[in-house]
Amino acid sequence: MKKIRCAFLTCFLVTLLRSVAPLDGQTRVRERPYFPDILGYQTLLCDFHIHTVFSDGLVWPSIRSEEAWREGLDVIAITDHIEYLPHKEDVRVDFNRSHAIAKPRGDELDVVVIKGAEITRAMPPGHNNALFLQDVAALDVNDWPDAFEAAMDQGAFIFWNHPGWLGQQSDGVARWYDEHTDLVEKGWLHGIEVVNTHEYYPEAHAWCLENKLTMLSNSDIHNPLNLDYHVHQGDHRPLTLVFAKDKSEASIKDALFARRTVVYSQNRLIGEAVYLRPIFAQTVRLNRTQVSLTGTRERFLQISNRSELDYKLTLKEPPDKLIVPQEIVLYGGKTVLFSIKAKRKGLSASESIALPYVVDNLKVAPNVGLDVTFQLDVTFAENQ
Amino acid sequence: MKKIRCAFLTCFLVTLLRSVAPLDGQTRVRERPYFPDILGYQTLLCDFHIHTVFSDGLVWPSIRSEEAWREGLDVIAITDHIEYLPHKEDVRVDFNRSHAIAKPRGDELDVVVIKGAEITRAMPPGHNNALFLQDVAALDVNDWPDAFEAAMDQGAFIFWNHPGWLGQQSDGVARWYDEHTDLVEKGWLHGIEVVNTHEYYPEAHAWCLENKLTMLSNSDIHNPLNLDYHVHQGDHRPLTLVFAKDKSEASIKDALFARRTVVYSQNRLIGEAVYLRPIFAQTVRLNRTQVSLTGTRERFLQISNRSELDYKLTLKEPPDKLIVPQEIVLYGGKTVLFSIKAKRKGLSASESIALPYVVDNLKVAPNVGLDVTFQLDVTFAENQ
Amino acid sequence: MKKIRCAFLTCFLVTLLRSVAPLDGQTRVRERPYFPDILGYQTLLCDFHIHTVFSDGLVWPSIRSEEAWREGLDVIAITDHIEYLPHKEDVRVDFNRSHAIAKPRGDELDVVVIKGAEITRAMPPGHNNALFLQDVAALDVNDWPDAFEAAMDQGAFIFWNHPGWLGQQSDGVARWYDEHTDLVEKGWLHGIEVVNTHEYYPEAHAWCLENKLTMLSNSDIHNPLNLDYHVHQGDHRPLTLVFAKDKSEASIKDALFARRTVVYSQNRLIGEAVYLRPIFAQTVRLNRTQVSLTGTRERFLQISNRSELDYKLTLKEPPDKLIVPQEIVLYGGKTVLFSIKAKRKGLSASESIALPYVVDNLKVAPNVGLDVTFQLDVTFAENQ
Amino acid sequence: MKKIRCAFLTCFLVTLLRSVAPLDGQTRVRERPYFPDILGYQTLLCDFHIHTVFSDGLVWPSIRSEEAWREGLDVIAITDHIEYLPHKEDVRVDFNRSHAIAKPRGDELDVVVIKGAEITRAMPPGHNNALFLQDVAALDVNDWPDAFEAAMDQGAFIFWNHPGWLGQQSDGVARWYDEHTDLVEKGWLHGIEVVNTHEYYPEAHAWCLENKLTMLSNSDIHNPLNLDYHVHQGDHRPLTLVFAKDKSEASIKDALFARRTVVYSQNRLIGEAVYLRPIFAQTVRLNRTQVSLTGTRERFLQISNRSELDYKLTLKEPPDKLIVPQEIVLYGGKTVLFSIKAKRKGLSASESIALPYVVDNLKVAPNVGLDVTFQLDVTFAENQ
Repeated sequence: MKKIRCAFLTCFLVTLLRSVAPLDGQTRVRERPYFPDILGYQTLLCDFHIHTVFSDGLVWPSIRSEEAWREGLDVIAITDHIEYLPHKEDVRVDFNRSHAIAKPRGDELDVVVIKGAEITRAMPPGHNNALFLQDVAALDVNDWPDAFEAAMDQGAFIFWNHPGWLGQQSDGVARWYDEHTDLVEKGWLHGIEVVNTHEYYPEAHAWCLENKLTMLSNSDIHNPLNLDYHVHQGDHRPLTLVFAKDKSEASIKDALFARRTVVYSQNRLIGEAVYLRPIFAQTVRLNRTQVSLTGTRERFLQISNRSELDYKLTLKEPPDKLIVPQEIVLYGGKTVLFSIKAKRKGLSASESIALPYVVDNLKVAPNVGLDVTFQLDVTFAENQ
Repeated sequence: MKKIRCAFLTCFLVTLLRSVAPLDGQTRVRERPYFPDILGYQTLLCDFHIHTVFSDGLVWPSIRSEEAWREGLDVIAITDHIEYLPHKEDVRVDFNRSHAIAKPRGDELDVVVIKGAEITRAMPPGHNNALFLQDVAALDVNDWPDAFEAAMDQGAFIFWNHPGWLGQQSDGVARWYDEHTDLVEKGWLHGIEVVNTHEYYPEAHAWCLENKLTMLSNSDIHNPLNLDYHVHQGDHRPLTLVFAKDKSEASIKDALFARRTVVYSQNRLIGEAVYLRPIFAQTVRLNRTQVSLTGTRERFLQISNRSELDYKLTLKEPPDKLIVPQEIVLYGGKTVLFSIKAKRKGLSASESIALPYVVDNLKVAPNVGLDVTFQLDVTFAENQ
Repeated sequence: MKKIRCAFLTCFLVTLLRSVAPLDGQTRVRERPYFPDILGYQTLLCDFHIHTVFSDGLVWPSIRSEEAWREGLDVIAITDHIEYLPHKEDVRVDFNRSHAIAKPRGDELDVVVIKGAEITRAMPPGHNNALFLQDVAALDVNDWPDAFEAAMDQGAFIFWNHPGWLGQQSDGVARWYDEHTDLVEKGWLHGIEVVNTHEYYPEAHAWCLENKLTMLSNSDIHNPLNLDYHVHQGDHRPLTLVFAKDKSEASIKDALFARRTVVYSQNRLIGEAVYLRPIFAQTVRLNRTQVSLTGTRERFLQISNRSELDYKLTLKEPPDKLIVPQEIVLYGGKTVLFSIKAKRKGLSASESIALPYVVDNLKVAPNVGLDVTFQLDVTFAENQ
Repeated sequence: MKKIRCAFLTCFLVTLLRSVAPLDGQTRVRERPYFPDILGYQTLLCDFHIHTVFSDGLVWPSIRSEEAWREGLDVIAITDHIEYLPHKEDVRVDFNRSHAIAKPRGDELDVVVIKGAEITRAMPPGHNNALFLQDVAALDVNDWPDAFEAAMDQGAFIFWNHPGWLGQQSDGVARWYDEHTDLVEKGWLHGIEVVNTHEYYPEAHAWCLENKLTMLSNSDIHNPLNLDYHVHQGDHRPLTLVFAKDKSEASIKDALFARRTVVYSQNRLIGEAVYLRPIFAQTVRLNRTQVSLTGTRERFLQISNRSELDYKLTLKEPPDKLIVPQEIVLYGGKTVLFSIKAKRKGLSASESIALPYVVDNLKVAPNVGLDVTFQLDVTFAENQ
């Protein structure tokens, strides 16, 4: 391109203004889904699988930081493909470049931007993300074990992406290969995506529990985020909740290796009970636990839920003396009524009664919801 | 990058699936704002000012076609800067490339994608878009008049962008220069952006009327569209309505040169009465025009509006014998009540009464709304 | 209550202003769901089962007309219980009073308000609504057959309400009794509620088809409408679509006796194919019917749906030579993509191909959707 | 009405089911606007001016408790007119009846339902509400001073309603009369509605400050709530925030007499700084107060606002050394960016800088916003 004098000032102003104007302080708004901090840790909202124009993504890297900030995320990883570069005729190949462009925007907005890459190979071992890299180019090698080794040399956290992806499993079923056993035994595989995009892989969920691997949930976003998720209307991308000492990269890495994560996908959380239980407990409140019932007259307790999720509860076992809801949905950000009445007349003592429910969309294992109990002190009175 | 055998199949599948999967038939939905066809022409929704990563935009060109289809547009122009290429260290300079990438996606979706460019110069003449180019590279020349001439050689339609842009007018006031007079006289300038992004330039509006130039309204979008416009919630980018014989590029070009356009920005239309009047007439309906009034009792007519806009009407002159609303808003897609009553008792004849209103947000000139009249046949009866 | 002089003016002003002020022209807005007129008839939106404080409802009758107008209805019937009057200690018993209060507001707003009543008896015959009454009090008699006879004497249209209501069928299953056979044989029973509130009774659906009875769908509303339906967010009460010559009571009555109705409940229509077919045909548009396919390359047709419903289509039988969607949702008010490609290479002729789909939520019988066919002229070309 | 045997069971079932069914636990949902508890008090959301069918309202009294619970209110008062009873031909006159019907539903839902009445007289003294009555009938007397005295005899809290109401002041301007001076001097007038429905009375605001009267904001609702307020879309009725020791009637009364209230109307709060300041402080958070600036480079702080309101801030006085936003909106429930940069190069010390803003929609007097200050520790560094 020719250099031209008259355009100089114009270009300078373009730089100055265009980069700021459409994104001034008031069109840029962040709305963060509420999750409580638990067990002394900060709860961080993270997406560890993101593409840009530097591989097969369709937005400039800085946009990834901007989208993350607006949606309320704390942490993202830029993980462009190493082996798959369909834009390479137009976009210069530099494996470290997308992170370098995304990071300053992240810094400006207090979003942590981790340098990562997607090792994009045939199955096995399929696609795997390596996070916390210093030099992605070192992973651009012929054989996939060499790529893993190069990542390990840099202290990477490595996880297996979308194990049931139709692109590699034509029936959509995740399969475990000897290569994965080898990787786990060597300490070269630390986690699996239990959710990728809108897909949940129950097999991967079970493998994480069996092999003590970290559960992850990521967007794998290629489009501008808002083309795939209706964020303006309350939709959200799949996220990994990370419970970290603080928001530093070191603490995030510690938490990932220590498996302190929960998967947040659509209207469900997937993870170990040790994390799901305090999230439920800290977001759900019963307005009273002392109830007096007269005859078989119905009364209403009120349950409020200040989380983002609509918790779906099913009664595990009906109590002897009470009629309570068989199923109830605790809507996120709202309060609902919990109907309660004596099963028959003539009950007259006071007693403490446990109401055992299962939260169907807090999953501690495939098809297993979290057990929760409401404990009530009930006084039965005769009908007037 | 090294070629590696094992990744071949994977990459093929990535291509096959990734480019389709997140954009399958059911996540891709188009919602078109309703505007009636008028005067025997098709009404096309157009955005003639759009950037991509190939200049200073932040999305891949194909996304521009996708965004346009989903928002209900019929026509876009890709108009990357010629002289301002901040990504040139990463993105290969090829002035025709962004259109070449955007067009196949447009063809797939029946969105017309016009090849254009933004001649990006200091003021005067400021930034100007040239549309319907065959070879953008021919405009990459030292002096701006040569760039205009190169565009004219290709039969371009040329319009002046954002004449009051803060980047070139520090007080935000659009100024007309001798250079613009020259351009108009030579027939090298055919239109002006009356609206760019969220800015309306009343001076430009007046110049278009005086000099018989085409009025345009464009997004000048650099970000992913949904970061700047909350399309999922009913927001829209600024658009140019073009009244064309059909949806071919030739007809669109004819319409632009014939000044058959209306500006659609936020909740207003700006243009000549000859176009605004039928749009109003074809979208607004009074449920009856024969009204009998008894004494001074209030009655309600109903006005429905099937356009996207909330028309804001102000009574121009109160009629002698009736009390009617001083102001009324006809909400888009809805029906409202129009209160009417005799000003005093004792009126008893039948007569045809004209109610003259101004539609404040259908602008035929700066600060001048469109005049409309509701004609009613009123029968006055004595109070029972 | 004592009469007091000083309050007179105040009270007058209260009357004048309070009855109008909170409902002035601009807070009162009507939004009508779109349904096309079909077969030369006007399509009217009707709710024939509504309660007020004059039986066990919880709003003043005039509100029923106001709610109906705002939600876009054309016709309502006020059908307070005759035999069930829980407010009678506070509200004077006058069976014709609720209609008399609701009607003037309906007249003001062009909503037809039909005088009806609910004959509220044990099962059989259960609860039955009589419409088009002159004097409801005549139905307040001891034995239910006498009440039916009194209604017939007034030329009433009579239909059986919520036949599977838990209040009268503890298992929620609708049951047909000999009394209903008698009523039908005598010509005293003309229709059945196939939908009441959120309940659909498949048995009632079948009985209507077998016995040539009119299908109805009504709200049975007791609360203020917006407590049970989130109308501000796009929700709607169950409605009966009536295909009438015009909007007069006489024509509505004709249409009901002639069984020209369709049930509109949630996201489905229930009725005879003769009515469902033109509704589908007049609201759905394929952007082209001539398609040329090259090799096995995918192409997209576009289907727009200007109705309120999301039509859910399932492919009945896969065509020999094409791959088309097995399932597709045509979102209401939107356009979606219809993917089409040749099943294999080497097809080269031109031919007309029928694509047979079932619209699952346009129900012509319990569990039977409407058959529709898209006819395409397909030209197959060799791969380049 | 005749008693009929066969309907008995039916009626019983109707009672049993209809009163519960449309309002079951899952269609009844409460969403409470967030306001923090302040100064050791509970913050209660209250509406002290509500009508039912027992005067000129249009819903049954129990609905008022239901609407209040769903909208998140803690306290309502039923205040039917004493002297204005347009439904008296249909609804039996009993001044205590509407409260008696509303209260059990309130008890069921933990909504406090206060017995009140509107003393509805010509101006002066206009309409006045008396709260905490035992027997409303005692206020049904000829002369208005006797009505006030009867209220005072019951220990009532009395406030003047809508002093600028068009029904009594044809120009919409509130006027103070000698009668009001007398009432205040006697201790018979304790507060004024600063907001009624959508109207704000600045004169009343000033009078409350001058005369140490309690400020109130009430709906004066006659319609079903959702016809006047789009609650499903985030709209709210005008509310009085009451800062009370607990949720008992006694504590609410104490708080009203002690003037511990704030008016919440549309997107503004009106009240004394002593209450507005902690509400602002407890809902707004700056993400950091230590800022280092390099040269004149822009940095962004982040301000989050967990209240319901969008706070609108205007800079009171530009600081010497910093460029900060002249105006900024802190959107409710969101985080926005606060741009900050050094005014010129060459600043190099560290210092604590106060940024004085006015919150325009937290009103401490008519046209006077609340002063707030952000204190920053700024370190200036030379440009690299």
